[in-house]
Amino acid sequence: MKIKMEERTKDLPAVWMEDEKVKMIDQRYLPQELKFFTAEDYEDIHKAIKDMMVRGAPAIGVTAAFGIAQAKLQEKDIEEAADHIKSARPTAYDLFYAVDHMLANLDEPTKKAKEYSEMIKEKCRRIGKYGNELIKDGHDILTHCNAGALATIDYGTALAPMRAANKAGKKIHVYVDETRPRLQGARLTAWELYNEDIPHSVIVDNASGHYIQRGEIDMVIVGTDRIVANGDIANKIGTYEKAVLAKENDIPFYVAAPVTTYDKNIKEGMKIPIEEREEKEVREINGLSITPEGSPVKNPAFDVTPAKYIDGYITEKGIFSTSELKDIF
Amino acid sequence: MKIKMEERTKDLPAVWMEDEKVKMIDQRYLPQELKFFTAEDYEDIHKAIKDMMVRGAPAIGVTAAFGIAQAKLQEKDIEEAADHIKSARPTAYDLFYAVDHMLANLDEPTKKAKEYSEMIKEKCRRIGKYGNELIKDGHDILTHCNAGALATIDYGTALAPMRAANKAGKKIHVYVDETRPRLQGARLTAWELYNEDIPHSVIVDNASGHYIQRGEIDMVIVGTDRIVANGDIANKIGTYEKAVLAKENDIPFYVAAPVTTYDKNIKEGMKIPIEEREEKEVREINGLSITPEGSPVKNPAFDVTPAKYIDGYITEKGIFSTSELKDIF
Repeated sequence: MKIKMEERTKDLPAVWMEDEKVKMIDQRYLPQELKFFTAEDYEDIHKAIKDMMVRGAPAIGVTAAFGIAQAKLQEKDIEEAADHIKSARPTAYDLFYAVDHMLANLDEPTKKAKEYSEMIKEKCRRIGKYGNELIKDGHDILTHCNAGALATIDYGTALAPMRAANKAGKKIHVYVDETRPRLQGARLTAWELYNEDIPHSVIVDNASGHYIQRGEIDMVIVGTDRIVANGDIANKIGTYEKAVLAKENDIPFYVAAPVTTYDKNIKEGMKIPIEEREEKEVREINGLSITPEGSPVKNPAFDVTPAKYIDGYITEKGIFSTSELKDIF
Repeated sequence: MKIKMEERTKDLPAVWMEDEKVKMIDQRYLPQELKFFTAEDYEDIHKAIKDMMVRGAPAIGVTAAFGIAQAKLQEKDIEEAADHIKSARPTAYDLFYAVDHMLANLDEPTKKAKEYSEMIKEKCRRIGKYGNELIKDGHDILTHCNAGALATIDYGTALAPMRAANKAGKKIHVYVDETRPRLQGARLTAWELYNEDIPHSVIVDNASGHYIQRGEIDMVIVGTDRIVANGDIANKIGTYEKAVLAKENDIPFYVAAPVTTYDKNIKEGMKIPIEEREEKEVREINGLSITPEGSPVKNPAFDVTPAKYIDGYITEKGIFSTSELKDIF
């Protein structure tokens, strides 16, 4: 089956609120089909996050904020709604942050949730502005997974500097890791870059080392689900591999994230809970089993990249080194 | 679709000869279905190699040897048969070697072809015997792609030490990289290990770094398509990434291959031509496109792992370090 979409789709937010409805792009169908999902209540919000119709830490946070606003408007039990929404996924700090932020601002729920969404977008715009300063004309940049508009409502975190550089007229080229098992790179990042007309190439995850080794990649920029006290990060499985390869080949490895991703309560990366997702994500592709039924499968969704591999944290407040982190956040 | 195969399939060679027929497992259908293909003449042999019903350099060589024996028994024009079989794939050195070996031994063609096949199997058996000495009870071993019986008629190269260790009663567990884009790990290596009742887990290529980092993998063993003069190797795309990750985490990285894999004519790995395969392998999975149609794709089939990452070469003559290579081969 070929992808039907012929026209570029621009300026579409990942998640938004209309009256009491929370609407979103159902990212599971991209890039073949642009479908939408409407969450009617907090059960639907939980389902949308859990089933990954929406994914990416900031977008999950915004969805959760809209979900709390919706529950408040619908006069549901807010504590119950908050607990249920928080239980949808374990690793992304934004989910808990956004829910707690809304619980402390229940006076004008819709307004506050929309402000939260706008604030995320504005932070991404600034991440793009600062990150752009690192990118030179002619640079080849590797990214992993999708830390783009789909993950953050608009602009993205890791993709924001690339958008800004492209807009500024720099000739860049992006290597897009396909990002098994869920293929967020091939499906989502490629779709965003295609829509923005930013030159890129999709590669299998196995090929990024090859291109880094041959000097064809100048830097790596990824997003993150959580930065902890010592600067270690958790991000999509495979991120650690790219970080080690970057260090081994002397190219910089940057993490782009809003300041709210920083979780001071966890001392080091190895203490971050790592979500193990269902075997089916590895075992089946497009409904066809690719492994013997009797073969066990392991499917960790995230890995931990120690701070020593990270050359800088691109945030809405500027670019910082590990040692500067604790003073900034 | 679930995999139908319920019973384990043991002691089945990848390719064999019965009277004038050359029979083989059609590897394109594994692990969903165990289908066989019978080559009736050298046109069929060409097709089986070209269409990758059989793959893996040693197995391709044996198929070609049987094909020449068959052509001789059928009183075909041997030069024509040899040229046609050689033209099936451009890269595999074993293909040309096996055909030329048979052309020089046309007196008893079936006997010579079977001897060639037995010789390959015997080398793999010895690789298993030597490699087993490296494996301790309780070890977790990572492998990439398929360097098993399907690629070598029986035992395999990288898988031979694991078979020997398992047979010796050592409790081992194998991490099987799925090996995008063609999924030889998930499809073929997992199937072989399942059939042999060797404990294993299939993981996405992105997850191997995570398990190495957490100390859950004790060693890496891979096969290779070519070892060059300075000890660098070419192997399936992604091998380099595993080698760097092994070094970074202080676990040994071994290459298992028969001595004939050593190519003294090429000085260093970066001189090995890297085959770029068709985009479709990355772009489509099970016939469904996973990338936007407008997104370009790059698909290198191999990468180069420099000798400095390799702790030993497991061969039919013993285990050697890089500095010992030139004296042994």
